[in-house]
Amino acid sequence: MIKITLKDGSVREIEQGSTVFEVAKAISGRLAKEAIVGEVNGELVDLSYVINEDVSLNILRFEDVEGKDTFRHSTAHIMARAVKKLYPSAKLAIGPSIESGFYYDFDVDVNFTPDDLEKIEKEMKNIISAKEKFERFELPRAEALKLVSEMGEEYKAELIEGLDEDAVISFYRHGDFVDLCAGPHIFDIKNIKAFKLLSATGAYWRGDENRKMLQRIYGTSFPKANLLETHLEKLEDAKKRDHNKLGRELQLFTTNENVGQGLPLLMPKGAKIIQTLQRFVEDEEERRGYELTKTPMMAKSDLYKISGHWQLYKDGMFVLGDEEVDKEVFALRPMTCPFQIMVYKNTQKSYRDLPKRYNETSTLFRNESSGEMHGLIRVRQFTISEGHLMVTPEQLEDEFKDVVSLINYFMDTLGIRDDITYQFSKWDPNKSEKYIGTAEQWEDSQNQMRTILDHLEIDYIEAEGEAAFYGPKLDIQFKNVHGKEDTIITVQIDFALAEKFDMTYIDSNGEKKHPYIIHRTSIGCYERTLAMLIEKYAGKFPAWLAPVQVKLLPIADRHLDYTYELKKEFEKHGIRVDVDSRLESVGYKIREARMERNPYMLVIGDNEVENKNISVRSRDKGELGAMSVEVFLKDLVEEIETRAILLQD
Amino acid sequence: MIKITLKDGSVREIEQGSTVFEVAKAISGRLAKEAIVGEVNGELVDLSYVINEDVSLNILRFEDVEGKDTFRHSTAHIMARAVKKLYPSAKLAIGPSIESGFYYDFDVDVNFTPDDLEKIEKEMKNIISAKEKFERFELPRAEALKLVSEMGEEYKAELIEGLDEDAVISFYRHGDFVDLCAGPHIFDIKNIKAFKLLSATGAYWRGDENRKMLQRIYGTSFPKANLLETHLEKLEDAKKRDHNKLGRELQLFTTNENVGQGLPLLMPKGAKIIQTLQRFVEDEEERRGYELTKTPMMAKSDLYKISGHWQLYKDGMFVLGDEEVDKEVFALRPMTCPFQIMVYKNTQKSYRDLPKRYNETSTLFRNESSGEMHGLIRVRQFTISEGHLMVTPEQLEDEFKDVVSLINYFMDTLGIRDDITYQFSKWDPNKSEKYIGTAEQWEDSQNQMRTILDHLEIDYIEAEGEAAFYGPKLDIQFKNVHGKEDTIITVQIDFALAEKFDMTYIDSNGEKKHPYIIHRTSIGCYERTLAMLIEKYAGKFPAWLAPVQVKLLPIADRHLDYTYELKKEFEKHGIRVDVDSRLESVGYKIREARMERNPYMLVIGDNEVENKNISVRSRDKGELGAMSVEVFLKDLVEEIETRAILLQD
Repeated sequence: MIKITLKDGSVREIEQGSTVFEVAKAISGRLAKEAIVGEVNGELVDLSYVINEDVSLNILRFEDVEGKDTFRHSTAHIMARAVKKLYPSAKLAIGPSIESGFYYDFDVDVNFTPDDLEKIEKEMKNIISAKEKFERFELPRAEALKLVSEMGEEYKAELIEGLDEDAVISFYRHGDFVDLCAGPHIFDIKNIKAFKLLSATGAYWRGDENRKMLQRIYGTSFPKANLLETHLEKLEDAKKRDHNKLGRELQLFTTNENVGQGLPLLMPKGAKIIQTLQRFVEDEEERRGYELTKTPMMAKSDLYKISGHWQLYKDGMFVLGDEEVDKEVFALRPMTCPFQIMVYKNTQKSYRDLPKRYNETSTLFRNESSGEMHGLIRVRQFTISEGHLMVTPEQLEDEFKDVVSLINYFMDTLGIRDDITYQFSKWDPNKSEKYIGTAEQWEDSQNQMRTILDHLEIDYIEAEGEAAFYGPKLDIQFKNVHGKEDTIITVQIDFALAEKFDMTYIDSNGEKKHPYIIHRTSIGCYERTLAMLIEKYAGKFPAWLAPVQVKLLPIADRHLDYTYELKKEFEKHGIRVDVDSRLESVGYKIREARMERNPYMLVIGDNEVENKNISVRSRDKGELGAMSVEVFLKDLVEEIETRAILLQD
Repeated sequence: MIKITLKDGSVREIEQGSTVFEVAKAISGRLAKEAIVGEVNGELVDLSYVINEDVSLNILRFEDVEGKDTFRHSTAHIMARAVKKLYPSAKLAIGPSIESGFYYDFDVDVNFTPDDLEKIEKEMKNIISAKEKFERFELPRAEALKLVSEMGEEYKAELIEGLDEDAVISFYRHGDFVDLCAGPHIFDIKNIKAFKLLSATGAYWRGDENRKMLQRIYGTSFPKANLLETHLEKLEDAKKRDHNKLGRELQLFTTNENVGQGLPLLMPKGAKIIQTLQRFVEDEEERRGYELTKTPMMAKSDLYKISGHWQLYKDGMFVLGDEEVDKEVFALRPMTCPFQIMVYKNTQKSYRDLPKRYNETSTLFRNESSGEMHGLIRVRQFTISEGHLMVTPEQLEDEFKDVVSLINYFMDTLGIRDDITYQFSKWDPNKSEKYIGTAEQWEDSQNQMRTILDHLEIDYIEAEGEAAFYGPKLDIQFKNVHGKEDTIITVQIDFALAEKFDMTYIDSNGEKKHPYIIHRTSIGCYERTLAMLIEKYAGKFPAWLAPVQVKLLPIADRHLDYTYELKKEFEKHGIRVDVDSRLESVGYKIREARMERNPYMLVIGDNEVENKNISVRSRDKGELGAMSVEVFLKDLVEEIETRAILLQD
């Protein structure tokens, strides 16, 4: 008998030589049914893995990340087997699981069509119904190479050649299908009850644009049909809300190949939203004691050498000139800190001047590679509500809390407070070369930050290796419609830059001290915030943000005079109005106006002209019927001024 | 006898061999007294020049530019003579007249102090009182070189060596002082009645930083003492108003050597003025039918190749990358046009969509050399109220007029309407390679522009060779406190870019046409506008622009509560308030507050606390005495909302 320590700490005795699956069965029938993969002493193994000594064991199901991954990776193998059956000359590249699905890359002479995918799905069903099991075997390097070359799988050969000399080389057989694979795989193939091939696209071998373009098929799978159904519905909804699609349809932004990737152009409607947000943020921050700066978007390399960006971040920066050749080398700024530090240093500060709170609507540049660009999210240039607070040690906690409170206020106002989570991002003590400062300084500032976070009573997770190079961060995370989590806001405590830049204040004893710096954004990058709002509201922006707040639809030419009278009156109250004066039917105009998702739509006809009133359709509350201009205006102005978020249908 | 044709067209007969001075005497005693230099057949000559044939003659006085130049160049010679007397080892470089004065560069072992300048002035007086005359002589090249090398004047030798083989080489002798000089010089040295040496500074020989640093002395001179006095007063005033000095003192902006030249950092007070101006401009333009865009600050070289910037303007651009090496080369934008053109092109436009008016608060970059940088005026990065109007031919005139009317409104609001002049900038047909488009297109668009300008009934001058490379411009010129004229605003008509970018609209016949583009700014570059306002108002900004509108000066600690109550009340009305709560005497606080030039200063003492009122000192209207908070607030809010410019003391 050997001892198995389970995840909950309990210990079971089992016979030596039992498989993981047998242990699962011994625990419960249900677990055996749902088990997908085992974790023995921290290593993932097949359920058929034989246990010969005392181990710790975790049995994972579909609900676990590793369970999902294994489940879907097995589905990828089944898809590959189906492809090889239908397209015998196809060569296999790689087929991993990914977040919410899997893919497999093939070197094949066809561009897969939706019809092809259907055929492949059908073949996959046949394979699954045969209920064959995955079977693992290992080969020495030479034999492994011999096997794949006999199979004509040149990509697999390249993969083997790239492995370490002493690597274990394993294969999985499934019927007549053999694939180089580290595993593990699922035990019972009939658990793959629901799957769907989603799309096919070109993808370079190893992501290298100089290598061959392969055909990639994306798919997903679930143990239950209703789970797949729900997932597909979510995908469909996400597609509709995708800012990179909807934002273009609503003419909020565009891109252009001559301008370049990652450099979106904000069209008037998108620019109006961002202008509105920026003024809101600047004004609110001014009320809270921030002083606005406007500092240059480039500087000599000298400045970044002091801050450490040059040594630790140069690859991410756009550099103008060549240090070997040019007397002066400039770089576009990736962050605003050194600039606001220079503003601080313009005059000697005393403790009475602190806290000093600088903010800036600041445009930054990051030299990202073209492949990483995406809509308004991954861009080369963006504008951020940047800010730096220079504080005494006594002020640190209060100022930090005020920053979090400001952020929460903005998140509340945007209606996304419930969509965010907090992450405490720490340094990685094993990669200290990526950071400035000593281990002691890091421990000290991380402890301070943890104390503050605990006092704030917010739920947060801790993430190692996610700090800025100059200090720990509080990251505010937002999950987009595709389920991808992004950091939208950060607050950092910096104990290092003040010393590097020789920033001081005179304390009450007349001595020079270095202030702490809180680096923060309050609403994040405006481009990313816009993307987030597009997806959150599916383009139905709250009235205060809507580029067009009221759409006027005159039925006929004879209603134009009154329509323009209304427009003038609304504009006097600061309302953004658009008139559709085209010679189209009112039905057509209404259909088009709905696509624009404006908060209010007013059809102007004989009744309205005669009664000098309006008939209002609210996007969020439905038909409001006839009312006086005064009542409508009063409500709308209040809705805008209070930045109300009405019910969204 | 020979015939002299004077400038007014009259003809005089004089004896052959007469000098210009004798002709002046023959015309009038006063002219002889005031005459400085002659112009014979368009060539400047000494008054002692002998006329031997029929010529046209113009006799110039100090009032004429050439008269001033000669007068001051002669003063430079006298200064050089004085320097050589006092510092015999000094070597002469060059000593030209410049706008409103002259300088001379010396290779000398001392750094001239104000005391030295006084000594030199004294010596100059001695020289002038000796009443010696300038005497011209010419030498062949070899002899000229021999003479200067005997005198040890190596810089003069270098100058001679740089002359054309057939150049006339002339010298001027004044007593024991001989200088290589093309002339002319003044006839009667005692006319130099008033002069002043203003400053001494280092200057590289030939402006080349790899050559020797010389000592330059600046001075000026006048025929009358009161003219010098007025000039010195103006200089003094200009110095006080100089934005590059006053703007730093008022903490509106700063620069930093690690950031780099031409990259000013706007401090909170400067940023507040620019934020206020930008919102004013954006809002007013929105009211006038403009649509705001926000487009990227860089693009691939491809975009600039279409616009022609790459071929004609590349040297002025910051380029990221190297076309020989990199797959993609980006450049920071020097202008916004191609970007707003891309916004226009996003959807097909019809004649009903026109005019399309795009504006943008747009940051631009120009790769200027370090030597040319100056304060907020000559910078590498600046933000401009940019805009492009896409119009049909029928709309061109009205839209152009509306643009000029908008500009005039802004100039009126800033109070500088009387300080600007209009310039019609045309192409240079002899340098057609610098422009795009045919001679016919240029003539056509220039004629259209002239017609519009004439209809506008504005006074304008015409300037050849000052057009943009893609079309003629209306330039709005502003003279700064140093008398230097700068273009602050331009409006351009462009017939070329629409075709290059394949921009079209569908006209009422269903045909595709290229629109005209009006490129315009309305208030100019914000940095330059700020500089102009600092100098115009000597830092006493109208209340709506003042970074701090009301300064509160509590006399003692017991007045603090009421002071902060007032602050809160004022801020509720959107007033920008600053409290000086330091433990300093109120007299000291008042002196400091005056330096800040805030529109209103309120001293808060026992009386104010007791009576719950305030005692107001207006910067522009003097002591206003005690008044209620309500009355003060009502007036101030009105002053701000109407953007009033009160009397400036």
